[in-house]
Amino acid sequence: MTLTTIDAGGSPFTVRRARRADLGALIALIAADALRANDDSVAPEHLGAYERAFEAIDADPAQTLVAVEASDGAVVGTMQLTLIPGLARGGAARLQVEAVRVAESARGLGLGTAMMRWAIERARESGAALVQLTSDARRADAHRFYERLGFEASHVGYKLFF
Amino acid sequence: MTLTTIDAGGSPFTVRRARRADLGALIALIAADALRANDDSVAPEHLGAYERAFEAIDADPAQTLVAVEASDGAVVGTMQLTLIPGLARGGAARLQVEAVRVAESARGLGLGTAMMRWAIERARESGAALVQLTSDARRADAHRFYERLGFEASHVGYKLFF
Repeated sequence: MTLTTIDAGGSPFTVRRARRADLGALIALIAADALRANDDSVAPEHLGAYERAFEAIDADPAQTLVAVEASDGAVVGTMQLTLIPGLARGGAARLQVEAVRVAESARGLGLGTAMMRWAIERARESGAALVQLTSDARRADAHRFYERLGFEASHVGYKLFF
Repeated sequence: MTLTTIDAGGSPFTVRRARRADLGALIALIAADALRANDDSVAPEHLGAYERAFEAIDADPAQTLVAVEASDGAVVGTMQLTLIPGLARGGAARLQVEAVRVAESARGLGLGTAMMRWAIERARESGAALVQLTSDARRADAHRFYERLGFEASHVGYKLFF
């Protein structure tokens, strides 16, 4: 993945592969999410699990963990892309998007839209036939956001936690 | 992945990793699905794309393409499992299930339930914190099926096709 600059609200942001040194910033973005506040924490005793998860993501060529950097160097956005090959739909690969987050400080600029358009372009380039994601049913704003980008709410997303 | 025998309706079925020689049977299972009949075909001119997709799945250690074999050797079920590492939820990996199919001839035995229970066990073994899947919003029967297995319809599944 090459570095890319995307524009949001007249400001340039760098989209790049996340590095080990970004981990604290990425966890903070994930923990700042209102629906996930109880699940994620930057407390030191949890760091080992995140470090192992980062290594597993980074070692898997099907994964791209993205960090979006503002011009002052702050990591203000993240998302994880997974390229999944498959037999259905004529042997179509799909790009799955997980864990999309934009920092409070960078909202209202259209950065999320620019990030998703960037992800959709990467999907096209990699030969995927579709982009897919799920969004918590309580996130009405996110649903409007994805629908404006052309996503269709065609499926029900099921989860089973252990 | 080791071979496993699962029981459905008093009959034994073998659950194993799909092989290249299963490809015709797997495409037929996928093409037999009412909602996908226009997308998939076993016509010879389409075989190359499926072969390339099979190779991509088979080469990716995060993927398990499953073939379920009846005692007469017929492949009567399939599903694709993808292990996705992630940072959210305390660095949790998730097992994603795609393209679950059971042949018409093997329905009504509880084979789908046995297959899903097998997949949930594989998820536990691999250290995943959750199992996830999406189901077309039109598949009311499938929704009852997943809810009986303990899945919660907590998310909206979005797709964007090129």
